[in-house]
Amino acid sequence: MVSRPSASYSITMRVEIQNRPGMLGRVTSAIGKAGGDIGAVDIAGFGTDTIVRDLTVNARDEAHEKVIAAAVGRLPGVRVVNVSDRTFLLHLGGKITVNAKSPIKTRNDLSMVYTPGVARVCMAIHEDPKKAYQLTIKKNTVAVITDGSAVLGLGNIGPAAAMPVMEGKAALMETLCGLSGVPILLDTKDPDAIVATLASIAPTFSAIQLEDISAPRCFEIETRLQELVDIPVLHDDQHGTACVVIAALLNAEKAAGAKPLLEARIGVIGLGAAGMAISRMLMHFTNRPVLGADLAEGARRRLERAGGKPAGLSDIMGSCDVVVAVTGAPGLIKPETVRQGQIILALSNPKPEIEPAAARAAGAAFAADGKAVNNVLGFPGIFRGAVDADVRRITQDMLLAAARAIAASAPSGEIVPSPLDKSLHRRVARAVARVALDQGLNRDDLTGYFGD
Amino acid sequence: MVSRPSASYSITMRVEIQNRPGMLGRVTSAIGKAGGDIGAVDIAGFGTDTIVRDLTVNARDEAHEKVIAAAVGRLPGVRVVNVSDRTFLLHLGGKITVNAKSPIKTRNDLSMVYTPGVARVCMAIHEDPKKAYQLTIKKNTVAVITDGSAVLGLGNIGPAAAMPVMEGKAALMETLCGLSGVPILLDTKDPDAIVATLASIAPTFSAIQLEDISAPRCFEIETRLQELVDIPVLHDDQHGTACVVIAALLNAEKAAGAKPLLEARIGVIGLGAAGMAISRMLMHFTNRPVLGADLAEGARRRLERAGGKPAGLSDIMGSCDVVVAVTGAPGLIKPETVRQGQIILALSNPKPEIEPAAARAAGAAFAADGKAVNNVLGFPGIFRGAVDADVRRITQDMLLAAARAIAASAPSGEIVPSPLDKSLHRRVARAVARVALDQGLNRDDLTGYFGD
Repeated sequence: MVSRPSASYSITMRVEIQNRPGMLGRVTSAIGKAGGDIGAVDIAGFGTDTIVRDLTVNARDEAHEKVIAAAVGRLPGVRVVNVSDRTFLLHLGGKITVNAKSPIKTRNDLSMVYTPGVARVCMAIHEDPKKAYQLTIKKNTVAVITDGSAVLGLGNIGPAAAMPVMEGKAALMETLCGLSGVPILLDTKDPDAIVATLASIAPTFSAIQLEDISAPRCFEIETRLQELVDIPVLHDDQHGTACVVIAALLNAEKAAGAKPLLEARIGVIGLGAAGMAISRMLMHFTNRPVLGADLAEGARRRLERAGGKPAGLSDIMGSCDVVVAVTGAPGLIKPETVRQGQIILALSNPKPEIEPAAARAAGAAFAADGKAVNNVLGFPGIFRGAVDADVRRITQDMLLAAARAIAASAPSGEIVPSPLDKSLHRRVARAVARVALDQGLNRDDLTGYFGD
Repeated sequence: MVSRPSASYSITMRVEIQNRPGMLGRVTSAIGKAGGDIGAVDIAGFGTDTIVRDLTVNARDEAHEKVIAAAVGRLPGVRVVNVSDRTFLLHLGGKITVNAKSPIKTRNDLSMVYTPGVARVCMAIHEDPKKAYQLTIKKNTVAVITDGSAVLGLGNIGPAAAMPVMEGKAALMETLCGLSGVPILLDTKDPDAIVATLASIAPTFSAIQLEDISAPRCFEIETRLQELVDIPVLHDDQHGTACVVIAALLNAEKAAGAKPLLEARIGVIGLGAAGMAISRMLMHFTNRPVLGADLAEGARRRLERAGGKPAGLSDIMGSCDVVVAVTGAPGLIKPETVRQGQIILALSNPKPEIEPAAARAAGAAFAADGKAVNNVLGFPGIFRGAVDADVRRITQDMLLAAARAIAASAPSGEIVPSPLDKSLHRRVARAVARVALDQGLNRDDLTGYFGD
């Protein structure tokens, strides 16, 4: 299957074109013939006899970018001045900055934000440590942490190469929820060292988001760290993913007119970070065991300890109403194993365990892949709500409330809403905070704040 | 000595005043009589028969703020609606935020800053780790780190209470030099744990600023950490202070028409973090031993190992041309011990070892206290220069170049320039980077960038 042109492979081409009627038509036709998808066309300047234009073009991949530029370069009367990859341009110098909130222009400003004025603020916090939540960045600041051991679908690429993802999360937290996300890269993969390091820097933050840490280390790291610190610790690849998957399942069940999730027989294929968290949250929600398949004995035992039932792939495909696959193994599910009326979420990226169209053709009542189920639907609002309600932990009930809020925000007929709708994240935050307050899970020594 | 009203104790008073001629005069007179220093007077609104005004008033201290408000409240026809302390107002919610550099409004934006586009940027860094300097925040990001063990003149107030100082440093780095400062609070005072923690998170940053860590732990922590990481580590209370002190001495020597620093007999009283670094940098500069006094045997031995000569307080006062005192002991230097023509910097805050006026009256050719010698003259440009030149270490030569650049920027007759002049910090950055490039101390695998 040939992928379609997308903004993630888009270029801006600066071309110098002889200023004659019909020339722009030749350029755009050449791009179209090469399969490029033209966006903005701007005038960048004029020569004596030429016009300089910037054309933004979506391509299918990097090779396709080159094909398009070459096609334009071959036209008579046209010179390609340069070609920039827009995704790389956007990453130059990183995607976030730390900024002062108020101007520091005069001695008076300086004496308030720094010495000598700041000393009084320090002493106020020293005398009443709770004031750190009002008078410092702590309350609004979330650590975004990785060791780079399980990044996107890329695997163990190391912390430095994982930074663009951490910056992306921080940029989304700010854009969607006003939180300050602080990326922290870890130069160790040893769970003891990771736990000790993060416990040491925890007073800086009001929550810790673990990110792209490989299983099974991620389970131990999250649990041990949460025991040591009094702020919430959440491994997004586990619980953020689970939350969004359950939101999608709630809507898929409606779209398929299928049995309610609470009564469905559910199977999870792949019991890594995401699969285990999805299983746990589903069991918390339905109060019934999930069937789970994994090649690793340790993963199957982990599921059993959590109350699930280890099963084979064919068992699950043959008996379950709902199947969630998070294996990283493209094409693992054969169409002939699909059960009639099944709901299938095949979530491995970039290639799913079964293409949704193939699953539907084989009889599935509903099928989707990982493109729709994006963590960014969950984590910004989950952290905003947890921080606003001053919780010490993020519980399954809070995550389930977040999943319900996401599901309820989807337009009719779709399984998830747009992640760029800020009101979605406000609703998720409110749902999370509401559970915290209803169940008395917020700190009793701090006053919660409800954004709206 | 009664201190003067200052912006670090300033209030904004909202007052409702009967709308009759002469009323504002009564209010401002009452404030003046109470010793308040009036700044902005704004109209905040109107009642049927009244006018609501916001008056900003500098006071001497918190008690004085209350005296001023009470004096206004006693006037007939005037009601004080509320009084806000401006320094505390400025600290609400903290002084810095993390912000996305580009808007994320469309699916296309999302696919470039986050998945799937970000994967290509991650892989580019994975294949060529140097690209982390171009494609992530690393190059522009400096950690600002404390354990809260020696904060300003306040001592061991703990990390949470030290946060306003760290935020102030970060706000100044951004405002003055465009660097992203990231405050990190440490929940441990154990040197082993601090070194291990910071080495673990070092890949996030292009430099580490240690801050307000008590001596003698600070010496060991800085040295051991610098051995472990390939980015510069600088304890500002040591080297930032030393750099600014030497800048001030260079100008003091001129102002006093005294012997050049290179030939002067120099004494340092107090061999803590600042005193040791001042001694070391002076010895590096003059290539001659400094006389140093301290009550602690360990501190005197440390000076000796660094090439200095332990001496008594009276020895130093009686024999030195230049005396720098950084003891934290107000009034330690008695006027009768001052030598004729001596240059004295008595730097302990908020009260110096000897008041400059008293030192001059006793025969000093030049005397100043810590108000003039502010670290903010140094650290923003030092880090900007080090980061721009991609150095692995900040050397004494770089710090000395920074000191000379600061000294050269002072207006004629003053010992230091204004710290709010951005061109000062550009000059300091350039001086630091120039030394790095001249001496080949920048990374050979990275291209330096010169801001101007």
